[in-house]
Amino acid sequence: MLNYKRYRRVPVVPYPERTWPDKEIEKAPVWCSVDLRDGNQALTDPMTVEEKIEMFQLLLKLGFKEIEVGFPSASQIEYDFLRKLVDDNLIPDDVWIQVLVQCREHLVKRTFEALDGVKNAIVHIYNSTSTLQREVVFKKGKEEIRQIAIDGTKMVKECAADFKGNLRLEYSPESFTGTELEYALEVCEAVCDEWGATKDEPIIINLPSTVEMTTPNVYADQIEWMDRHFKDRKRVILSIHPHNDRGTGVASCELALLAGADRVEGTLFGNGERTGNLDILTVSYNMFSQGINPELNLENITEIKDVYERCCKMDVPERHPYAGKLVFTAFSGSHQDAINKGMQAMREKKQEWWEVPYLPIDPSDIGREYEPIVRINSQSGKGGVAFVMDSEFGFKLPKKMHKEFADVIQKIAEKQGEVAPSTIYETFQKEYLRKLAPYELIRAKAEDLAESETEVEVVFSSRGELKQAKAVGNGPLAALKRVLAEESGMDFKLLDYSQHALSQGSEAKAAAYICLRNNKTGKETYGVGVSSNITRAGFRAMFSAVNRLEEQE
Amino acid sequence: MLNYKRYRRVPVVPYPERTWPDKEIEKAPVWCSVDLRDGNQALTDPMTVEEKIEMFQLLLKLGFKEIEVGFPSASQIEYDFLRKLVDDNLIPDDVWIQVLVQCREHLVKRTFEALDGVKNAIVHIYNSTSTLQREVVFKKGKEEIRQIAIDGTKMVKECAADFKGNLRLEYSPESFTGTELEYALEVCEAVCDEWGATKDEPIIINLPSTVEMTTPNVYADQIEWMDRHFKDRKRVILSIHPHNDRGTGVASCELALLAGADRVEGTLFGNGERTGNLDILTVSYNMFSQGINPELNLENITEIKDVYERCCKMDVPERHPYAGKLVFTAFSGSHQDAINKGMQAMREKKQEWWEVPYLPIDPSDIGREYEPIVRINSQSGKGGVAFVMDSEFGFKLPKKMHKEFADVIQKIAEKQGEVAPSTIYETFQKEYLRKLAPYELIRAKAEDLAESETEVEVVFSSRGELKQAKAVGNGPLAALKRVLAEESGMDFKLLDYSQHALSQGSEAKAAAYICLRNNKTGKETYGVGVSSNITRAGFRAMFSAVNRLEEQE
Repeated sequence: MLNYKRYRRVPVVPYPERTWPDKEIEKAPVWCSVDLRDGNQALTDPMTVEEKIEMFQLLLKLGFKEIEVGFPSASQIEYDFLRKLVDDNLIPDDVWIQVLVQCREHLVKRTFEALDGVKNAIVHIYNSTSTLQREVVFKKGKEEIRQIAIDGTKMVKECAADFKGNLRLEYSPESFTGTELEYALEVCEAVCDEWGATKDEPIIINLPSTVEMTTPNVYADQIEWMDRHFKDRKRVILSIHPHNDRGTGVASCELALLAGADRVEGTLFGNGERTGNLDILTVSYNMFSQGINPELNLENITEIKDVYERCCKMDVPERHPYAGKLVFTAFSGSHQDAINKGMQAMREKKQEWWEVPYLPIDPSDIGREYEPIVRINSQSGKGGVAFVMDSEFGFKLPKKMHKEFADVIQKIAEKQGEVAPSTIYETFQKEYLRKLAPYELIRAKAEDLAESETEVEVVFSSRGELKQAKAVGNGPLAALKRVLAEESGMDFKLLDYSQHALSQGSEAKAAAYICLRNNKTGKETYGVGVSSNITRAGFRAMFSAVNRLEEQE
Repeated sequence: MLNYKRYRRVPVVPYPERTWPDKEIEKAPVWCSVDLRDGNQALTDPMTVEEKIEMFQLLLKLGFKEIEVGFPSASQIEYDFLRKLVDDNLIPDDVWIQVLVQCREHLVKRTFEALDGVKNAIVHIYNSTSTLQREVVFKKGKEEIRQIAIDGTKMVKECAADFKGNLRLEYSPESFTGTELEYALEVCEAVCDEWGATKDEPIIINLPSTVEMTTPNVYADQIEWMDRHFKDRKRVILSIHPHNDRGTGVASCELALLAGADRVEGTLFGNGERTGNLDILTVSYNMFSQGINPELNLENITEIKDVYERCCKMDVPERHPYAGKLVFTAFSGSHQDAINKGMQAMREKKQEWWEVPYLPIDPSDIGREYEPIVRINSQSGKGGVAFVMDSEFGFKLPKKMHKEFADVIQKIAEKQGEVAPSTIYETFQKEYLRKLAPYELIRAKAEDLAESETEVEVVFSSRGELKQAKAVGNGPLAALKRVLAEESGMDFKLLDYSQHALSQGSEAKAAAYICLRNNKTGKETYGVGVSSNITRAGFRAMFSAVNRLEEQE
């Protein structure tokens, strides 16, 4: 049994004054990508310089204006990378380059050496403030830990005097979620004061859930508490940095945005230490799906995924929201049917905004394909097969025909598992369009004798023998039916007939569907015919149906 | 640019009376696994009967008492599977078997045929109630849709009369989160009334977020609203069935539990349509990490992962909370250092409950290993290397030595990427323990001449030549230092010395560390020696240090 008694509940401070649950997300925050720092440091195989450049270019393309590029004082590789960005003029004028550094003098100095020539720089200092880390890691009291932050701020201030670009300070009370709120506020205010932050020269106060410790509403409470307790809220850009240890990083971010956060640090696909950082893509696409501009250029998720997987040597999970291989598929028949109807309703209403059951967004809006929406397996219903025939191949099977054809596919699925659309189409051809024995139409002529009297003359092969016959009916199909009834010796009735164009224009082919019932056995079956001649399409459908009926005798 | 204007915000009904944000999760809900139904139907390659049996056995072992096994009226495979469970007596007496069925008479009858012989059965009926589905899929009004649910309840009631086992009804207003709350309540109450649910014979009302449409707090509001508006709350088991379209399925579940849900439907690792169902494992381990008994036997996550991956042919993502390959690794040096210190503090305090920075739980409590916690790459700091030497090999390197050795490993990491613990150890041997030239100790004798006067007589090889020497010092190390100073011609000072046992017992070996400074060049280096004889360990450390000093000249 799980030894749950070994763990203690994280103490939660009640905050009934909260207002965030009454709010909704109204606009995108400032995004800061930490892919090249927090993300990269958590890779089994960290990015090479070339891969870092490719990732950096992608981040620029996506529209990130704040990018943390590393910890240049701690690693020669990260130092060299930043110098390369500067020396090769790779940083656009409107982009802020962020670097992380501990509150130690030689490291701060080294960091400013690395930043030389950067136009807009965010220097991000941090120290761990949580009860646990104060006690077991630093073995220091609250005063001393606060002093580390103040001293770090002073060091940056001193180096900043000689820095030629625009400079912003970011301070993180690391392990914020494990820190007493009053104390976290006290340290942050001390840093703000020491820095001399003002409304016009604000400071970034970044409140990480370094380790996700509670349900996401508690993080939101903590953020709102901070938001409402800053001495001068206007001098602070309130930033969050969620992690995902409880699998609720996205929720923590969203609720913290309701709670007043201005800025979000995260990565593509949530890469990062352990369970990862916040996944900026999911939060952005969530906004997008609600009609909110995420202020990022995310219209091609496939490209984003490709670069990410190549540079990070990580796989995007198959059920990752928006990017996962399987997330725009619907296996269940009832889902497929509802999707089908939803799309049809949108077309009929000429509705511009998207609203389809089970598909929160139109996959094509983010560079995914409709094509794989429906896969057919043994659990798919008839709606799914009909949907594939329509969306992939343009055949709008009559409703009554759905089950007949789906049963055929079901048998294949029960044997082999998933059935590809191409297999469905091949089966459709084999079962209907190329059902040419025992009777195959060679050519036919139809002549109207009167308003309700048509004579057809038909040349066909019957069990390999060429035959010719004539008959009269109230239309060409009725006449042909007589020919085939006589030839086959079967007594059957025409139950259903429909036809539609397979494409647009005068050269378009038509598909015809005919349902016959064998009056002796009671069996019913459809036949399908295709031709650019609408009469011939109908005739072929009749031959197809008769052949299928005879097969079932 | 993303075409966000094509989407509309889901309307949210304000519910300021909510109380859930003031609550905490206190106990586990009733869990219902839908792995064999909702999970299985979303697999590219659905489970074979053998795989379903293996999955079912796993679910029993994990302690699930309610298991949805399929949709027997819709698929012959699922019908046959349920019959096999009955015929082979695979269902324990305390387990409820749940089956899904649409509100259609022949399907309900067929479902009861499949259930024949089941001791405890939950028949789960559903129909879609959302505004969108009423309009575009069913083209029916509120009354008609409600009637479908009532009729379905009647059908089950009729069949139930002949059913010999215990029977419970579950009703899902499918696409609940897209349904007007008042209407959802109205339909649910009608079903409760029709069924004749009572406190003693309650009904399961399951409120799915069939498609996750909003931030998770809104789902919690909806659940609490329902919870507080049921006419007779006691006759209802309030069940939730979250999906994960916005990547917040776990959060939706947790907040809904705060909001009053009694029961949770989900799957292992969140398998299920599109982005998946709720991941029961993550919610359970989250509870566990807070000292709450999740009431499931989840002490071996590796086994769960193995069976899941084999049966579902799905991979558990590398950053999946608790099960992911990378989630108990810490790449960052400062994290590694803090973990090291946290573990040490727990040992020193003999603290029983777990509290270590960056590790929300002890991996060994859920069948994971300590071993991969720390991997060393070019971004790792000195703490990480020291941690590996301690945790993997028992060498407690003196603090001042951390950087010296980490620099060696850093160079390897910058060339090859990640450095395995075995490589770290080999490097340690090569650099310290087997640094046997130019001077190698052969044997030594130490004799105490007085309280602070020791004579050593040492036989050693010097550049391949066997030598013998004697010296006196205030201890054996001081005496040996004189021998080696004379032999090497170097002027050096002993800066630091420490020694510790490598294991317990009288046969344990000791590791000795000696730091020397070359007084001419100012260079400092450590040497390390190991022996079951503590004097010899120290001597070897001295030889190692002198050899390293000479190498650096």
